[in-house]
Amino acid sequence: MRVLTGLQPSGDLHIGNYFGAIKQMVDAQNTSEMFIFIANYHAMTSSQNGEKLKENSLKAAAAFLSLGIDPQKSVFWLQSDVKEVLELYWILSQFTPMGLLERAHSYKDKIAKGLSASHGLFSYPVLMAADILLFDTQLVPVGKDQIQHVEIARDIALKVNNEWGEIFTLPQAKVNEDVAVVLGTDGAKMSKSYKNTIDIFSDEKTLKKQISSIITDSTPLEEPKDPKECNVFKIAKLFLDEERESDLKSRYLKGGEGYGHFKMYLNELINEYFKDARQKYKEFLEKPSYLKEILDFGANRAKNVAQAKMQKIYDKIGL
Amino acid sequence: MRVLTGLQPSGDLHIGNYFGAIKQMVDAQNTSEMFIFIANYHAMTSSQNGEKLKENSLKAAAAFLSLGIDPQKSVFWLQSDVKEVLELYWILSQFTPMGLLERAHSYKDKIAKGLSASHGLFSYPVLMAADILLFDTQLVPVGKDQIQHVEIARDIALKVNNEWGEIFTLPQAKVNEDVAVVLGTDGAKMSKSYKNTIDIFSDEKTLKKQISSIITDSTPLEEPKDPKECNVFKIAKLFLDEERESDLKSRYLKGGEGYGHFKMYLNELINEYFKDARQKYKEFLEKPSYLKEILDFGANRAKNVAQAKMQKIYDKIGL
Repeated sequence: MRVLTGLQPSGDLHIGNYFGAIKQMVDAQNTSEMFIFIANYHAMTSSQNGEKLKENSLKAAAAFLSLGIDPQKSVFWLQSDVKEVLELYWILSQFTPMGLLERAHSYKDKIAKGLSASHGLFSYPVLMAADILLFDTQLVPVGKDQIQHVEIARDIALKVNNEWGEIFTLPQAKVNEDVAVVLGTDGAKMSKSYKNTIDIFSDEKTLKKQISSIITDSTPLEEPKDPKECNVFKIAKLFLDEERESDLKSRYLKGGEGYGHFKMYLNELINEYFKDARQKYKEFLEKPSYLKEILDFGANRAKNVAQAKMQKIYDKIGL
Repeated sequence: MRVLTGLQPSGDLHIGNYFGAIKQMVDAQNTSEMFIFIANYHAMTSSQNGEKLKENSLKAAAAFLSLGIDPQKSVFWLQSDVKEVLELYWILSQFTPMGLLERAHSYKDKIAKGLSASHGLFSYPVLMAADILLFDTQLVPVGKDQIQHVEIARDIALKVNNEWGEIFTLPQAKVNEDVAVVLGTDGAKMSKSYKNTIDIFSDEKTLKKQISSIITDSTPLEEPKDPKECNVFKIAKLFLDEERESDLKSRYLKGGEGYGHFKMYLNELINEYFKDARQKYKEFLEKPSYLKEILDFGANRAKNVAQAKMQKIYDKIGL
C-alpha cells in the first residue's frame, strides 16, 4: 500500500501533532510504503516570507527525522526538490474543470478567515492532485477538511484516465477516526490556533510555562483527586503504559499530592519521552549540510519515481 | 531592448502570418535582443492531443527557423525545455489576485466560443506573466486581444516588486499598428478560421488550389483591369518591389491578360519568394536530430538567463 503525506512546514510541533498524526506515520513505516514530503510549495500560498519559509522547512525536516521518520524506509523529501510536480500540475490543470475548484470548501473557508483570494490559494487542490498522482498514491491520510481535496485529485485522475487510458492510480482519502484527540492546556483540542499547546522542541523554560498553565480544579493538596477529570492526567496518559498509568491513578486517588506534583511528573515524562528526539533535532540544526544530504537522498528516490511517471505522461501530452 | 515573443504551434503558417508578424520579427533580430519560444505549454490549454502537439511544435520550430529566425542572433527555444517557467508561474500565483484573472477578456471569449472552462485556460495569463518576467522582457509585441495579458503581467510584477524590491522588469505591450493587413482569397483578413489562407509550406497542388480560389470580378480578358480593386494584385504586391509592382500595374491597365494569368504570376512570385525557406523546412523535418540540436542550443541560452533570475527569486521566496 503506497501512502502519501505532505507535511506543512508551519513551525513548532506540539504533542497534539505527535500523538494525533506523527506517531501513526512513524509506525506505518513498518507496514506501508510511505512517501512523505515537506510541502514548501504549498506553504507559499499562506506566506511569501522566504526567510521564514526556508527556516520552517529545514526545522520541519529536522523535526520529523528526529521523531522517527526513517529516510531509508520512507521516501522523504522537500517538495521543491522534485520540480516534476509543477509540470504535472500544469498538465492536470488542462483536465480540471473550473467548477471543481470553485466548489472547494477549503478555499472559501480560508478567504472567510481573511486570507487574500490569490490564484495560488485557489489552485492549491490542483497542486495537491499532482503531488498525489505523480507517485501513484493509493492512500492519503487526511483530516476531515482535506477529504474534498483527495476527491478532487480522484476526479482529475478519472478525467485523464478517461482520455489517455489507465495512467493514474485512483487515490483514496483515509481519515483516521480512532486517533485519540489530544487535549490542550485548557482542556480543548490541542491546536496552535487555540494557544493551548505543549511543544515538543521548546526550551525547558517554555515547556515549564506551558505545563504550569494546564487548567486544574481547586481540590486541596491532601484530598483524593479524580484522574478522569484532570487535564494533567489526560495528557500524561499519552506517555504511560498500562502499569505506570495505574500507578499514577493511585497517586491521584490516594490524596496527599497537589496538581503541582503531577505537573512536575508530566514535565519529567515529556523530557524522558522526547530526550533522544531533542538531541537529534539539535544535531540536525547544527549540521545543516547533513540534513541536506538526507533530503537530497530522499529527493533522488522521489525523482526516480516521478520521472518514470512523467515519461509516460510526456508520451501522451507530446513533450 | 529585450523583446519576447511566444509562438503558438498551431499548424500551417500562411502568408498573412508571414507579412503580418514573422517578417517583422525576423527583421527585428538586427536591432533588438529577441527571445522567441514555441509556446507548447500554452498550446495544451486548447488541445491535449500529444501526437499533434509534438508534431506541431517541431513543425513550428522548423518553419520559423526556415523563415529567418537566426538561433545565433535570437534566443530561440521550446517552452517546455526551460521548466523554470512553471516554478515562477507557481510563485507568481501567490501574487495574483483572483479578480485579475476573472476580469480577463480572453478567457471569457474562449469560453463563449465553446472551449471548456478548465483551470489551465483560466490561469493562462499567469503562465504568460512568468514567460515575460522570467526573461526581464521590456517589450512584448502582441495583437490587440493580448494587451490585457501583458497588463496582467505588469500588475503582477508591480505587486512582487512592491513586496520584494525591484526584482522584475516591467514589460510593455507593443501593438504593431503600421503592419499592413494581409487579405485572404476572399478579400477579408487572411485567417485560418476564415479558411481563406494561402499557406507557405503547402505542396504545389494545394498552393495552386488556394490561389485559384482568389475571388476576382468578371472583367473580360481583353479589357483593362483596376489593380487597386483586385485581390490577386493586393496579395502579389507584398512580394514586389516598387519597380516590379509598377510593371504589374501596367499589365493590369493595358488589358489583354485575364486573372488566370495574374494568378499564375502570383504563384511564381510565391514559389520564388519562399524557395529557400521551403528547402530549409524540408531539410529540418528530414533531420529532426539537427532541429533538436538547435532547440537545445537555444534552451541552454534561455536557461542561463532563467536560472540567474530564479536564483534571485529563490532568495526571496526561501527556496
